[in-house]
Amino acid sequence: MIKTRKIFLLLFLFLGIIGLQITKAENGYRLWLRYDKITNKTLLNEYRSQIGAVVIQQDSPTIEAAKNEIKRGLDGLLDISIPVRPSVSGNSDLIIGTPNGSDLIASLHLDAQLRAINDEGFLIEQKELDGKTHIVIAANSDIGVLYGVFAFLRRLQAHKKIKGISIQSEPQIKHRLLDHWDNLDRTVERGYAGLSLWQWSKLPEYKSPRYVDYARANASIGINGAVLNNVNADPRILTEQFLKKAAAIADVFRPYGIKVYFSANFYAPKRIGGLDTADPMDPKVRKWWKQKVNQIYKYIPDFGGFLVKANSEGQPGPADYNRTQAQGANVMAEALKPHGGIVMWRAFVYNAGGEDRAKQAYDKFVPLDGKFDDNVIVQVKNGPIDFQPREPFHPLFGALKRTNTMMELQITQEYFGFSNHLAYLGPLYEEVLDSDTYAKGKGSVAKVIEGQVYNYNQTGIAGVANTGNDINWTGHPFGQANWFVFGRLAWDPTQSSEDIADDWIRMTFTNNEKFIKPVKGMMMKSREAGVKYREPLGLAHLCIQGQHYGPAPWTKDMPRPDWTAVYYHRADSVGIGFDRTQTGSNAVEQYNQPIEGKFRQLKSTPDKLLLWFHHVPWDYKMNSGRTLWQELVHQYYKGVDMVRNMQKTWDSVEGLIDEERYQHVKALLKIQEKDAVWWRNACVLYFQTFSNRPIPDQYEKPAHTLEYYKKLEHTKYYEHN
Amino acid sequence: MIKTRKIFLLLFLFLGIIGLQITKAENGYRLWLRYDKITNKTLLNEYRSQIGAVVIQQDSPTIEAAKNEIKRGLDGLLDISIPVRPSVSGNSDLIIGTPNGSDLIASLHLDAQLRAINDEGFLIEQKELDGKTHIVIAANSDIGVLYGVFAFLRRLQAHKKIKGISIQSEPQIKHRLLDHWDNLDRTVERGYAGLSLWQWSKLPEYKSPRYVDYARANASIGINGAVLNNVNADPRILTEQFLKKAAAIADVFRPYGIKVYFSANFYAPKRIGGLDTADPMDPKVRKWWKQKVNQIYKYIPDFGGFLVKANSEGQPGPADYNRTQAQGANVMAEALKPHGGIVMWRAFVYNAGGEDRAKQAYDKFVPLDGKFDDNVIVQVKNGPIDFQPREPFHPLFGALKRTNTMMELQITQEYFGFSNHLAYLGPLYEEVLDSDTYAKGKGSVAKVIEGQVYNYNQTGIAGVANTGNDINWTGHPFGQANWFVFGRLAWDPTQSSEDIADDWIRMTFTNNEKFIKPVKGMMMKSREAGVKYREPLGLAHLCIQGQHYGPAPWTKDMPRPDWTAVYYHRADSVGIGFDRTQTGSNAVEQYNQPIEGKFRQLKSTPDKLLLWFHHVPWDYKMNSGRTLWQELVHQYYKGVDMVRNMQKTWDSVEGLIDEERYQHVKALLKIQEKDAVWWRNACVLYFQTFSNRPIPDQYEKPAHTLEYYKKLEHTKYYEHN
Repeated sequence: MIKTRKIFLLLFLFLGIIGLQITKAENGYRLWLRYDKITNKTLLNEYRSQIGAVVIQQDSPTIEAAKNEIKRGLDGLLDISIPVRPSVSGNSDLIIGTPNGSDLIASLHLDAQLRAINDEGFLIEQKELDGKTHIVIAANSDIGVLYGVFAFLRRLQAHKKIKGISIQSEPQIKHRLLDHWDNLDRTVERGYAGLSLWQWSKLPEYKSPRYVDYARANASIGINGAVLNNVNADPRILTEQFLKKAAAIADVFRPYGIKVYFSANFYAPKRIGGLDTADPMDPKVRKWWKQKVNQIYKYIPDFGGFLVKANSEGQPGPADYNRTQAQGANVMAEALKPHGGIVMWRAFVYNAGGEDRAKQAYDKFVPLDGKFDDNVIVQVKNGPIDFQPREPFHPLFGALKRTNTMMELQITQEYFGFSNHLAYLGPLYEEVLDSDTYAKGKGSVAKVIEGQVYNYNQTGIAGVANTGNDINWTGHPFGQANWFVFGRLAWDPTQSSEDIADDWIRMTFTNNEKFIKPVKGMMMKSREAGVKYREPLGLAHLCIQGQHYGPAPWTKDMPRPDWTAVYYHRADSVGIGFDRTQTGSNAVEQYNQPIEGKFRQLKSTPDKLLLWFHHVPWDYKMNSGRTLWQELVHQYYKGVDMVRNMQKTWDSVEGLIDEERYQHVKALLKIQEKDAVWWRNACVLYFQTFSNRPIPDQYEKPAHTLEYYKKLEHTKYYEHN
Repeated sequence: MIKTRKIFLLLFLFLGIIGLQITKAENGYRLWLRYDKITNKTLLNEYRSQIGAVVIQQDSPTIEAAKNEIKRGLDGLLDISIPVRPSVSGNSDLIIGTPNGSDLIASLHLDAQLRAINDEGFLIEQKELDGKTHIVIAANSDIGVLYGVFAFLRRLQAHKKIKGISIQSEPQIKHRLLDHWDNLDRTVERGYAGLSLWQWSKLPEYKSPRYVDYARANASIGINGAVLNNVNADPRILTEQFLKKAAAIADVFRPYGIKVYFSANFYAPKRIGGLDTADPMDPKVRKWWKQKVNQIYKYIPDFGGFLVKANSEGQPGPADYNRTQAQGANVMAEALKPHGGIVMWRAFVYNAGGEDRAKQAYDKFVPLDGKFDDNVIVQVKNGPIDFQPREPFHPLFGALKRTNTMMELQITQEYFGFSNHLAYLGPLYEEVLDSDTYAKGKGSVAKVIEGQVYNYNQTGIAGVANTGNDINWTGHPFGQANWFVFGRLAWDPTQSSEDIADDWIRMTFTNNEKFIKPVKGMMMKSREAGVKYREPLGLAHLCIQGQHYGPAPWTKDMPRPDWTAVYYHRADSVGIGFDRTQTGSNAVEQYNQPIEGKFRQLKSTPDKLLLWFHHVPWDYKMNSGRTLWQELVHQYYKGVDMVRNMQKTWDSVEGLIDEERYQHVKALLKIQEKDAVWWRNACVLYFQTFSNRPIPDQYEKPAHTLEYYKKLEHTKYYEHN
């Protein structure tokens, strides 16, 4: 009788669990670090039999983080309470640690393997010990252990076999950062997911638990640095008041291997330092930076360094004192050097008028090659303009032989529909990283920034973050994928963005193949769709200026010609496109052979970059057999079709995931379709005023006139950004 | 054997539940609508035996909401799946509905009781049926049913007995609104909890599930309206684009009885209507408002109406055309009238210079009494200045005999330390609502706004919301209490704010008396603490101008004298305070006898309002036996002591609630203590420059000089607001 009652009670509890699972809010807060119980029973039992306990013999804040994570992950995924012990006692334990911290690890003969990987790398190996089979996560340092733990959990989340596991992994790039364009008032420039995560007014007293979850997410994909504030930098970040606040954040991040960096305002010596100049060659200024940096390191002993936007878009810089960019960077580098800090000096410098904007960074920085201190890294955007849906790789990659060069990618979708549109940027990142620069023979942009081409002593890659205080961090549920893929590629640029998408889907949504296959296909095509309905064939910057959401290819009256749209597309009665060959700006000359020759010739220029390099007649015959005008129209319509196919794909997976995220994405795809049609119609109708050629009959006619779309620019209104 | 295995499995699941409960993030998202299992087993069993099933015989979106809520609530609290059925079949059912929708309810002889309550009211009664005891939640309308459901769940959440339950409740005020000062770019004026909840750029397509949770929270405390946008109104809210977006929000709110309202810009006919004037007497303008309102009702059939800030702080208004406030209000009222909409016309009108700011609203509106259409309600702030920590009640309450008058309270803590400080505002609301106006003999402000003194045909109360997209809605965990108490008092102003705090604590944190008693005590004293360390004895507006966080009693050079601090405190070598008697502005004359006489005389003015009405010599002997200077110093020091006691109280309850919210509040109390000291020292040192009297020895000396605190004003930097 008692037994029956107990069973009855337990059954009630069981129903309780089901209830909990059904009503659990899938609000996206957990990102890809979801450790829900594995529902595949065979696999669950397999994992359970393979992981009986966790063995850890050492302690440090980072090891503590690793322990908490593995415990949290295994307890959740395996739905049992995994014991954590200081010694092996079971048949199948998970042994975690470094040879320095753990006698057990030291005894496992991993020395050669560990010597082959760098300080942040890790091994995951199956090892026999006293006739029993264990799994070992070993590394040279505590942070390597944490990275290994996340990699191991990822395998379980993705339902991958762990029998016979053998993984060696190490990051190829040293500094892997998120750049937060977050202002001190918590607004975020180009941020579409709420306010900044940093609650400055409550720091240092209140350290939001969200900072830990942010650090966990970053560590899980190998990101090891965060620039806390906007490159359009408020100098007050360097005041003692903010140093105390930032130090509190740094304390939270430290166990997760994440260093804190600041964007520094070049006028800080004047604006907060009370000096009458910020001239980098002035001894007072040099002294000021030294003292300031020393003060920073008092609060943040492992401070990473500065990111600087100078003489760019209104920001102050060394040119204000007739000094070079190198002289500007070095005054800060000199101050940071004794502490091991670096300067990330942005190459995003261009002046109004005069030379082709795409050429200016190269022209300015190549003559300075070798003039920068060795703890400076010149930070170059992936393309020569500004995070457009598609650009060729920036010619500065491979051009600086004696100057550390790092890459800046954009994760936040400034030109990709903000957090309203689905655009998986993995293929964009991959495209630029895989581009061959021929700097020293065939060799990709990735090799350059890995320091393999010129042996840079500092290497780095930065992504402009898409995070905010929205519950789901990134606004669009698929925005999380861009954060994820950035981190994964920063760790190892040779990875495939498709494989990374596969991981992300499994971790974030489900391991159900019926969901994964179509959704992965949709993701992989989504960036190309965004290119096509906005700026196909190498067009760029046709967006509403300032805001960058919708189309305004007609924009011409602006304070600067390079902030107009007509500057970029140059459409006229003859054709369309920016002539960057010898008959135009000759920007092609900045590329190495054979790339240079390929881009210089109309015929050998790939369609996707055609109008980036050439002004092409409307009736030019494309590879497709269509004229340029027909092809342009085709591309725009194709872009909309692709979005509609994304909608169909998403409709087809209804019921395979939770309703909350399903409906969220569905609603956003509806917005994206509407916006894609807006882009298409506005651009096709506008370019038609130059081509004077019809939209072929097979395409649906634009629903409104060009005038309507021109007006739309002024009535459309979006969120703070 | 099989049985044992099953038991074992179920035990595993049981451990799983415990795991889930421990790791469940207590991030505050659920507000007071937490339905966690009742851990008191006796009570749990009692409730379970008293509620076997829910009986509902009708359907509508509101009834659906009620059904979902009671199911969610009971399933969670009782940790069983409660069946919902169309008929009584158990021994102890919960019968829910209206006599019109449910034969069962109609048969219960509740007619007389239901006639005694209004359309939004409800009954909760124990009823015998065929010898069995059921509980009935009955109302005249569906929304009454939903309110009854929330009231019932509240009792369970607060562990109150339901045996013999008999509750009759109805709202005393018709329009109970939250005013959101949310801009269309999602920034929030005076908002300290992130961006606006309304994701305009994703509407109408994406209706965030958060809108439902917002509606649930409001309905649970009886709020039935929401003004979606800032009173400093962007006219674009009235464009078709935004009407579609707002209609989507209204659709979500409708089942929860919440009407949508807009703040309307008086210049809308010019700014978005293309007219060359906004003169309310111009037929074109009248026509424009009619057409605009008709258009609104096409999208939102139950649209509530407009809130208008006109000729106030730079906003346009009828005075621009030499029209009265009444003429301005009536042009909108006329358009809204056929649809049943109302105009809430703010009395917050004051000009720079000239007359005492505290007198101006009264002087401007009393002569217009009777001139407003009957669907206009003049919206009056609780006090005559602007949401100061303490003000006397606004003399307009009771002064408008033939003009509907409603109250505007502030929930967001503009003058109360933003979301950094703990200040339970229940006692502030209660203080003003309970104040006797003597408009028609003894009778409180509450009676005036309930329409009992002058029989207004529209009654209302509005609270300026403190919500934002922070996960916990209000930033400070105790900010939620202010939203809660506002709604509860709006429903029934006679309730005690202490009882409401008791409910809130039980629902939000725990029913553990060891926690409730000290924390309730802390809450009840917190507003008074905030008054004392900022502006004791009736002082006001000593804050940093513009931002309103920290102290700057020295402020004098501003574009308008009434935006300085010296305008309000008038400290000089003789004394301190604003003389509002016959020797000064004579603002006291705006109050009725005997209040007027009481305030006019120094001796009979309560200490807490002394310096509001009188300029008092430094050596004036107070009731305490101290001189005014000594008393002022005493009050400031007492304020800091009170905050330190709050810290001690909070320290003493560690371990009684979850760590996440405990640490959050603890950190914020630390900030509050620091800020309280800042306020105290800045004010005492500054006023000392006038009093030339020492700070008595028993008090700790200010750690810095006055100059230090003056500088602090310019280095302190807070979030966007």
